[in-house]
Amino acid sequence: MQAEIISIGDELLIGQTVNTNASWMGKEFSSLGISVARCTTISDNSSEILEAIDQALNRSKLVLMTGGLGPTKDDITKHTLCTYFNTYLEINEKVLERVTKYFTDRGRGMLEVNIQQAALPFGCTVLDNLQGTASGMWFEKNGSILVSLPGVPFEMKSIMENEVFPKLKEYFNVSSIFHRTILLQGIGESFLADKMEDWENRIRFDGFGLAYLPSAGAVKLRITSLNGEVDLPKIERYFTEITEALPVNVYGRGEETLSEVVGKLLLDRGLTIGTVESCTAGAVATAIVSTAGASAYFMGSFLTYSNELKNKIVDVNQADLDQFGAVSETVVRRMAENGRTKLGVDYCISTSGIAGPDGGSEEKPVGTIYIGIATKEGSFSVKYLFGNHRDRNVQMAVLSALNLLRCSVLGIILKK
Amino acid sequence: MQAEIISIGDELLIGQTVNTNASWMGKEFSSLGISVARCTTISDNSSEILEAIDQALNRSKLVLMTGGLGPTKDDITKHTLCTYFNTYLEINEKVLERVTKYFTDRGRGMLEVNIQQAALPFGCTVLDNLQGTASGMWFEKNGSILVSLPGVPFEMKSIMENEVFPKLKEYFNVSSIFHRTILLQGIGESFLADKMEDWENRIRFDGFGLAYLPSAGAVKLRITSLNGEVDLPKIERYFTEITEALPVNVYGRGEETLSEVVGKLLLDRGLTIGTVESCTAGAVATAIVSTAGASAYFMGSFLTYSNELKNKIVDVNQADLDQFGAVSETVVRRMAENGRTKLGVDYCISTSGIAGPDGGSEEKPVGTIYIGIATKEGSFSVKYLFGNHRDRNVQMAVLSALNLLRCSVLGIILKK
Repeated sequence: MQAEIISIGDELLIGQTVNTNASWMGKEFSSLGISVARCTTISDNSSEILEAIDQALNRSKLVLMTGGLGPTKDDITKHTLCTYFNTYLEINEKVLERVTKYFTDRGRGMLEVNIQQAALPFGCTVLDNLQGTASGMWFEKNGSILVSLPGVPFEMKSIMENEVFPKLKEYFNVSSIFHRTILLQGIGESFLADKMEDWENRIRFDGFGLAYLPSAGAVKLRITSLNGEVDLPKIERYFTEITEALPVNVYGRGEETLSEVVGKLLLDRGLTIGTVESCTAGAVATAIVSTAGASAYFMGSFLTYSNELKNKIVDVNQADLDQFGAVSETVVRRMAENGRTKLGVDYCISTSGIAGPDGGSEEKPVGTIYIGIATKEGSFSVKYLFGNHRDRNVQMAVLSALNLLRCSVLGIILKK
Repeated sequence: MQAEIISIGDELLIGQTVNTNASWMGKEFSSLGISVARCTTISDNSSEILEAIDQALNRSKLVLMTGGLGPTKDDITKHTLCTYFNTYLEINEKVLERVTKYFTDRGRGMLEVNIQQAALPFGCTVLDNLQGTASGMWFEKNGSILVSLPGVPFEMKSIMENEVFPKLKEYFNVSSIFHRTILLQGIGESFLADKMEDWENRIRFDGFGLAYLPSAGAVKLRITSLNGEVDLPKIERYFTEITEALPVNVYGRGEETLSEVVGKLLLDRGLTIGTVESCTAGAVATAIVSTAGASAYFMGSFLTYSNELKNKIVDVNQADLDQFGAVSETVVRRMAENGRTKLGVDYCISTSGIAGPDGGSEEKPVGTIYIGIATKEGSFSVKYLFGNHRDRNVQMAVLSALNLLRCSVLGIILKK
């Protein structure tokens, strides 16, 4: 079962709005076993819309279209749909009643453009919009289906959930394309592929697809059941195998974030955490508290960006700063240890490095970042060498720090 | 001048990744006067890619393609490009050298798949990737151009900025559309439109277009010359008028960030800054240091997430915490004042609030955030009421804090 999505709107083409509707639909369809073969974004233009509809219906049995249904003048979608399906607009009394109620409920009067929202193509199935005034429309032609929905995300989603998904289940035998995702940190795509080659070949031989989705400092590995059969114990075994092979890197599954994974670990064990940050300047703390409820385990931090404050606030010896420099194992371990005591926490993360674009040297190039962890048993640090992009270096340091903390809490030995 | 974008990747179609590349490109092209006529997302499939390229090049002189260039097996884009442009892959020695350096710089060995990243279609113009190992490719055929870029956003953006835009400017008479943008913080789109109605009517009457581009906590106002004539003094006068009407809100122009604007103010005046953050947990500091060179004015911070640390580290009276609560004018001003002294800085920003989703009360609902500023003349605070979305509340607090600092440094009186 294959579908296509057509998104209408200049605001999408000029990048004023990011097309989150298409990704939401893709995710929902995928979980219903409907594979999205193509998404096309076009402008509010009648001939563009006609061409896109025609091509999509020639390729796919199901076409979902969003956008172009608001009350303002630049909306031509409904007229174009009438042209394509050879019909005409007619006021739908039931919809007019609902639109009128929508405005009276909000103590507002109706304008002519609002009344026109009840004018819908004769012969289509109207899909009720409980969140707004632009109705959805369901058309059928030669065994194919075209659904037109408003582009406002929460209106679109509401119509999809209340009207479109139930109708699709009636029409099609929607089984399931089955995806599972495992999340890794601190290993590059190519090293992962190399290290897991045999495993990967076995998975593919067993009829599963495997895709690598890299982002800064992390890789998602997606396993897809290609033959429709879903063997959950087998997938569970794959997950166990990769976790056992790469315990330092595998941190979670599905939509989990490292912040959530770490938060849950700390919460379960009743542990508290703080940070002493230099080059990341609070980005590690911000990532930790991006998980709701973090106040149960995150206590606070010292951001010692200047060397003076490293000495003054967390008591790093001036002699150590002079001898080893702020970006050094000695200093980053002192930061973690002293921060742990002063913040009164179980675990303390520290960071010190050269985020760039300037400030590097031959010995310590831009991208050199030390991360320290202090626990009641002592402290350790790991030296990283990232790239030359400031924001990305901070982002990679944050993920590395959270993963280091995860490994430390779990007692996983780090071989760096 | 018309372009199309082709995005390759199953992760986009199944909604695992939102297509931010397409919107970024749309925005950039739009500012160059290139209109994006269509964006098409397809899967990692040779025949799909061939068909999409062929159709796009038949409609448009310029086609940008992203994705499908990583080192792992599921990447077939380069072979498909060879088929379409009737060529073959050949190791590019210059690229091989750069890829090799990329790995040796990071102290890592090369795998066969990494070497293969230097295999590029013979005859294409190679676009250097300074951020990663997948090169961009520039093809020409019958007067049309196809550019293929990696899908990792910061690699794609880096190649676009360093290679693609300069080349496009050579080939086409771009930037015929004239845009100027003015940046505002702390005022909603509809309030801005209402307040500036007469000004806006005058601008439109003078032959300029005006667009509101709202984001969380900020609005960009884009003035576009519609008749091709560019009257810079006139636009300058518009900018002066809106700045004089809304001095608290107008903070900059073009692509400036508030962090850059504030950084420049502090640098010019030789002032230093620190923060004492609770609900924002380092996000204000992170925003300040996102500007390169921030170490000249940013010294450090105390993140006092727990009430205990507010008392222990920045000496907020326990009595004040008990009587007024941590989210109060009294506490946020003490945080700023004491932080200023302890950090030894000229200006100190403080934050305390309820980011959500829980923790609100009738008196202090979720989204209530106090921001304090301490200077050598004294301190003041402003109470904000944002929404019920945790991440967005933090983001709005960060922008509000930086803008408050800007107004304080500039001596602009805040009427709240």
